[in-house]
Amino acid sequence: MSSSLTGHQFLGAVRSAANTEIFQGINPATGESLPGDFHEATEAEVAAACAQAVDAFQVYRQTTGEQRALFLERIAAEIENLGDALPERAHAETALPMARLTGERGRTTGQLRLFAQYVREGSWVDARIDTALPDRQPLPRPDLRQMLRPLGPVGIFGASNFPLAFSVAGGDTASALAAGCPVVVKAHPAHPGTSELVGLAISRAVEACGLPAGTFSMVQGRTVAVGMAIVQNPGIKAIGFTGSLRGGKAIFDAANQRPEPIPVYAEMGSTNPVFFLPGIVAQKGTALAQAYVSSVTLGVGQFCTNPGLVLLQQSETASAFVEQARTAVEQAAPAAMLTKGIQEAYTRGLSHLKTIDGVTVVGEGQATDGFALGTPALLTASADNFLKTADLAEEVFGPSSVIIQADTREQLLEAARSLEGHLTATVHGTDEELVAYADLLAILEQKVGRLIINSFPTGVEVSHAMQHGGPYPATTDSRSTSVGTNAIRRFARPVCYQGFPQALLPAELKDGNPLGIWRLVDGKISQ
Amino acid sequence: MSSSLTGHQFLGAVRSAANTEIFQGINPATGESLPGDFHEATEAEVAAACAQAVDAFQVYRQTTGEQRALFLERIAAEIENLGDALPERAHAETALPMARLTGERGRTTGQLRLFAQYVREGSWVDARIDTALPDRQPLPRPDLRQMLRPLGPVGIFGASNFPLAFSVAGGDTASALAAGCPVVVKAHPAHPGTSELVGLAISRAVEACGLPAGTFSMVQGRTVAVGMAIVQNPGIKAIGFTGSLRGGKAIFDAANQRPEPIPVYAEMGSTNPVFFLPGIVAQKGTALAQAYVSSVTLGVGQFCTNPGLVLLQQSETASAFVEQARTAVEQAAPAAMLTKGIQEAYTRGLSHLKTIDGVTVVGEGQATDGFALGTPALLTASADNFLKTADLAEEVFGPSSVIIQADTREQLLEAARSLEGHLTATVHGTDEELVAYADLLAILEQKVGRLIINSFPTGVEVSHAMQHGGPYPATTDSRSTSVGTNAIRRFARPVCYQGFPQALLPAELKDGNPLGIWRLVDGKISQ
Repeated sequence: MSSSLTGHQFLGAVRSAANTEIFQGINPATGESLPGDFHEATEAEVAAACAQAVDAFQVYRQTTGEQRALFLERIAAEIENLGDALPERAHAETALPMARLTGERGRTTGQLRLFAQYVREGSWVDARIDTALPDRQPLPRPDLRQMLRPLGPVGIFGASNFPLAFSVAGGDTASALAAGCPVVVKAHPAHPGTSELVGLAISRAVEACGLPAGTFSMVQGRTVAVGMAIVQNPGIKAIGFTGSLRGGKAIFDAANQRPEPIPVYAEMGSTNPVFFLPGIVAQKGTALAQAYVSSVTLGVGQFCTNPGLVLLQQSETASAFVEQARTAVEQAAPAAMLTKGIQEAYTRGLSHLKTIDGVTVVGEGQATDGFALGTPALLTASADNFLKTADLAEEVFGPSSVIIQADTREQLLEAARSLEGHLTATVHGTDEELVAYADLLAILEQKVGRLIINSFPTGVEVSHAMQHGGPYPATTDSRSTSVGTNAIRRFARPVCYQGFPQALLPAELKDGNPLGIWRLVDGKISQ
Repeated sequence: MSSSLTGHQFLGAVRSAANTEIFQGINPATGESLPGDFHEATEAEVAAACAQAVDAFQVYRQTTGEQRALFLERIAAEIENLGDALPERAHAETALPMARLTGERGRTTGQLRLFAQYVREGSWVDARIDTALPDRQPLPRPDLRQMLRPLGPVGIFGASNFPLAFSVAGGDTASALAAGCPVVVKAHPAHPGTSELVGLAISRAVEACGLPAGTFSMVQGRTVAVGMAIVQNPGIKAIGFTGSLRGGKAIFDAANQRPEPIPVYAEMGSTNPVFFLPGIVAQKGTALAQAYVSSVTLGVGQFCTNPGLVLLQQSETASAFVEQARTAVEQAAPAAMLTKGIQEAYTRGLSHLKTIDGVTVVGEGQATDGFALGTPALLTASADNFLKTADLAEEVFGPSSVIIQADTREQLLEAARSLEGHLTATVHGTDEELVAYADLLAILEQKVGRLIINSFPTGVEVSHAMQHGGPYPATTDSRSTSVGTNAIRRFARPVCYQGFPQALLPAELKDGNPLGIWRLVDGKISQ
């Protein structure tokens, strides 16, 4: 199947390759170029994709929840129909193991089907009806009905670290399509072939469901210009992005400087602090140290929720914990990272950390030869050093983590107070000490989108109650999540219909509730 | 009561007047200075207010819905306890009629009580629970529980045109306090005495309810610096603003350029296009023309929802409609506007409109002498001119309106497509022609927050289904409303609690649903 990759843009139903500038996928395990010549999209191609999205929106915004559900389910089926070619190409382009990639495919299709179920049920539109009070004094109340309506075409940037679940048909695409928004995807250049295969699956679903071709477009490119052309196109009304702080912030700034600013949902870096309280370390330090190192090295540390920072309070068993973590990390094997560039940035970041005053190396995995290998590493520093060195709290994307050791409970709280926004924070403690550290939990709740007790942040459930977001700089919009059904709200806005005849109201707002959704009617929730 | 105005800042419980620079309220009907010397806040005073808000947040964020409800109700009662002194001072400072101001006081206290009821009921937190699935293959699902939590201290800018309902204790303050956020209010310099009286009422309620003093602060000032010091303070986590496009955009830009960008809910200009379709004009053109002019001149045109733009399709009766509107506007008396500055800007804006190619004057109210009188005016132009002149669609704040005359149905749709974002759009039509113009409604739905049929946009109900917002440049965040209970969502973000013991969960998320709120449990809504 890979040999049939065209390397063309998907401009709705049109396959286009206007640019002679091409690039290839690279196998990060070997450094070899993979089959397929991918054309860098031109500005005109991006503009054509956005124009098609604008046209498609006029039709797609009027589709019913049932129609969108069938479309999302068809995308899931078309992804499955790609067979092993998809995880195989993804494996070649990312060096992620096949088992992980088939699992991630399941996550991706499961996510599409969850959104299908969510929009088929339909209550997500937050329908609100205030019935007319014609006799009210001093003024009558008109009939007012409100629901969420789609924002418009959405620009989506595929992420490198989840080539399926956070990429072309990932959570951003699934939630935008579920909301009623066409998408223009910028494929991540680290997995262009995987992207083309998934793009093919989506465009087959578009055709099979009889939707306007411009409902889905995808452009390829390695340059910043391709992405920025999407962000700056006046037809685009919101952006979904997962990646670096630098990339996300640049998009956020560009979007705010447009003549019409638009919302940017950029999920960026996070070091996901994990606190180990003294009692639990005394009780089961060895198991926790091993589980911690497993979480750090999972997927070569290439998760948004990788625990890059541990905070320990000095205790009799704290140093034993560090020793056990050292043993675990020294047994962890290096593995190929997603790209040579990511591996180089990891190596640079790690080297920088080592130069910081008071930072020492706890242990490192054994270095072996390879093209883009990331070697696991644990560092440590005192809370004193942490509090005076902002760099120590910054993300180094990869399988490293810094253990901060606080002298006292108060210093641990001070370190917690000094944290910026993160996706997650985790506290390990016995039942008693969790109660005794309620003040720590209260501090952390203000720093993150998800607070975890006695587990690890890696592993992000796709469900209704998941919150994958957090205060800046974890994201550019702490009010939103990029995982879970609530992600759909990012791509919708409320519209109020005043004094509408029944025939002109959307079904969600009609008398008699023909869709049987949950609604707030005169302040009471009912179905 | 006015004679007791101190002109001091409210820095929590501290009354401060560090600056010797003072200003007075001005009666816009006479140009006379009113009693009370108001001190321009210093940077240090703003910083002290924000610091108190940050401290207060640690306590206030943990208050229950019931506690916040009692607080909001107490504010309403304290505002009523101010007696006639409040509307009298507001009348002196704004020239708005006493009947309007007592009505607006009722709107303000009603709004506070509606939010009290909303947070007492408690379902607004959007509680979501996904129970643990410990036996799930290949991986167990952890226990995940999510709800909305307050963002943090909010900076609020009082608006000039609603000295009570969109000012110190207006919708922004009510919704932020309801959400659990302390507020730092920048009083509008056009009604500093009214602001001080309302500030006094709120601070009495803070004390009576035993809340931290920093839950409410208010600073006075005429300069941009005072407001910008609030926007740039790192303790402030969101901004509420109602005012001009220029002011709102400057705040939006400043907030985005902070080291930690924060959301800005700026409700800015809007011309609120009103479409009159041929059939309804033929049926009841006279009544509609009069109602239209009443809506234009209501409150001297100083509403965000003032119908500044009318779009008419040529028909036998269209010119009669324009004639009837002329008669009505020529009978409309000039009245004092909110400030001399607003009146001058209105006069300038109107003069500019008159210079645009193809614009003619339909009619004007009779000019009389006075300090800050705004004279009603109707202008007209062809849709051809409208489509080539962007200025014609821009808001001129005051009692004027421009009637655009389209040659054909298609040209009317083209004019609709050319519109930017507005708070509202209105269509007047017979039952049959509303169906025949479904395409017009579909276009307009993408331009506004509220679509109105056969009524006028002035009159914004405070209720659950109201949407007072709209695409840029009507607001900086089309996903939000500044009126109605949904406004509370602006000041909250979701937090997910993973693996929490029951004792550490907020009451909203505990097993057994002790608060009896509506929740989404494993994908099913229940109470």
